[in-house]
Amino acid sequence: MKAVAIGVDIGGTNTVIGIIDKDGNCLFDTSIPTRGYSDINDFMKVLHLKIKESVSNLEEQVDIKGMGIGAPNGNFYKGTIEFAPNLEWKGVVNIVEASKKHLDVPTYLTNDANAAAIGEMIYGGAKGMNDFIMITLGTGTGSGIVANGKLIYGHDGFAGEVGHVTVIENGRECGCGKKGCLETYASATGIVRTVFELLANSREESILRSISFNDLSSKKIYNAAIKGDKIANQAFEFTGMILGKCLANSIAYTSPEAIFLFGGLAQAGNLILEPTNKYMQENVLKIFQHKTKLVLSKLDGAKAAVLGSSALVWKELN
Amino acid sequence: MKAVAIGVDIGGTNTVIGIIDKDGNCLFDTSIPTRGYSDINDFMKVLHLKIKESVSNLEEQVDIKGMGIGAPNGNFYKGTIEFAPNLEWKGVVNIVEASKKHLDVPTYLTNDANAAAIGEMIYGGAKGMNDFIMITLGTGTGSGIVANGKLIYGHDGFAGEVGHVTVIENGRECGCGKKGCLETYASATGIVRTVFELLANSREESILRSISFNDLSSKKIYNAAIKGDKIANQAFEFTGMILGKCLANSIAYTSPEAIFLFGGLAQAGNLILEPTNKYMQENVLKIFQHKTKLVLSKLDGAKAAVLGSSALVWKELN
Repeated sequence: MKAVAIGVDIGGTNTVIGIIDKDGNCLFDTSIPTRGYSDINDFMKVLHLKIKESVSNLEEQVDIKGMGIGAPNGNFYKGTIEFAPNLEWKGVVNIVEASKKHLDVPTYLTNDANAAAIGEMIYGGAKGMNDFIMITLGTGTGSGIVANGKLIYGHDGFAGEVGHVTVIENGRECGCGKKGCLETYASATGIVRTVFELLANSREESILRSISFNDLSSKKIYNAAIKGDKIANQAFEFTGMILGKCLANSIAYTSPEAIFLFGGLAQAGNLILEPTNKYMQENVLKIFQHKTKLVLSKLDGAKAAVLGSSALVWKELN
Repeated sequence: MKAVAIGVDIGGTNTVIGIIDKDGNCLFDTSIPTRGYSDINDFMKVLHLKIKESVSNLEEQVDIKGMGIGAPNGNFYKGTIEFAPNLEWKGVVNIVEASKKHLDVPTYLTNDANAAAIGEMIYGGAKGMNDFIMITLGTGTGSGIVANGKLIYGHDGFAGEVGHVTVIENGRECGCGKKGCLETYASATGIVRTVFELLANSREESILRSISFNDLSSKKIYNAAIKGDKIANQAFEFTGMILGKCLANSIAYTSPEAIFLFGGLAQAGNLILEPTNKYMQENVLKIFQHKTKLVLSKLDGAKAAVLGSSALVWKELN
């Protein structure tokens, strides 16, 4: 029987399920809607029916070694999702406990960015690295920090919120209630805000002038940039400056061997990588200069979330 | 025979030696000048003569379990001091190798702030804590970050330079070549700079107006503050604001159980603790609010450096 881990990624809209072996091969993946279950137990019933169905449809028999769950505001120590703004379950919900009623295997929970970091460590570009940082540039900005070969959960299980480091004093309003968080600049939504600021401040022609705020996406900005649109290119340069300066500070904390960029905005490749690296190296303390590599995640983007969650199992069972 | 560790703190002017038992009792301490030895081997000869003399003068026989050395730019992995601006030995100097020629026991080197963090963990207020940060507010600003029970040295051995996080864009010139580093505001020298800025900008009377920049010290500012001098009190408030906002970001990285303040400026006690804590709690991400304690180091200030260095031995032998 093949040893596998179940990886689950609970998102605001959908919950993705993957059955993953030790080498990071995804034997099967599927999803269910996250919404519509006000009671976590109802959700778990449906989730585990889907898992059972998926496992029974596999060509080979598998031995489920454990289950890893990634979710916003997931607490590794307590197995709880706590006050997640985009989920229906309010307050503190014990996800691990609810899940084990259906499948009694070692079950681990953390937030999605931490799961991505562990995925990178077990299956991706951080194999063999003891010190690295994963930055996820999606709708929000998440991070997972690994030092001494271990993910930093902090005393309360919530460490690694680089997205909510203040980068501009009294800067843009953030969903967290603060102002000027990294997330408000360096994320798929942050770069949209940057484009609108640039459009407001400059007289430069741009194909982005015909797109509304709600319709604009980091993908559209990318497409405009590769066509030579100046505003779009300036937006990437500005985003890289903010992110690079922030990462220069991050290096001063944990001196990582590498920083991985992941998520929607990271798909812009060199357009985001190059300015970020330039400003990161220019602003870092001399003793660290040109030591930390800035690279794109090696995880398969489409499956990264469940890969990361499943990696929790291999990491903890090791 | 009593088990002891030799703690050595190499400073720009003096090198302090302590003979410390497992409970942090200093059986003996002494010092030698650091300057005057262009060759590290000459320095080590004198250092170890002093250690031998000190050990032979003890009332009881001791078993030296190891030696811990704290030094600026000390690299834990390589046992080297690298490009320390305030020491005579230029470039990269292998301290551990040079020391072991004289005393062949397990020997560890790190920078002074990291040593202080380990001292706090082994003998001080961080006993039993897995996640905490030590901030040393001396002439410069150092830090030692502990996560998952281990000090973070990073991939190159130099992690934990929170003093060189940029806190004010294009701010004050720092000795490191950058601008606006935490150290230029939140240190014994930073608060002197702040007083001069306040004296320049305000018309407020102050006893500090009669003291030159070179004669002013954090101790004198403290004395003025407790006498009710407004400029001195504003300087502490401003320093606490800068430090507190920076520590709010630090919490987002590693979510420590506590942050310890140590060194000359920390001796101001509540004058620095209260504003720092206020701004730290106000600016931290909600999920972390009022969780991390901000406290003064519990290490005996006068002996803290050698206590910290010696603690490296107990930590590593554990």
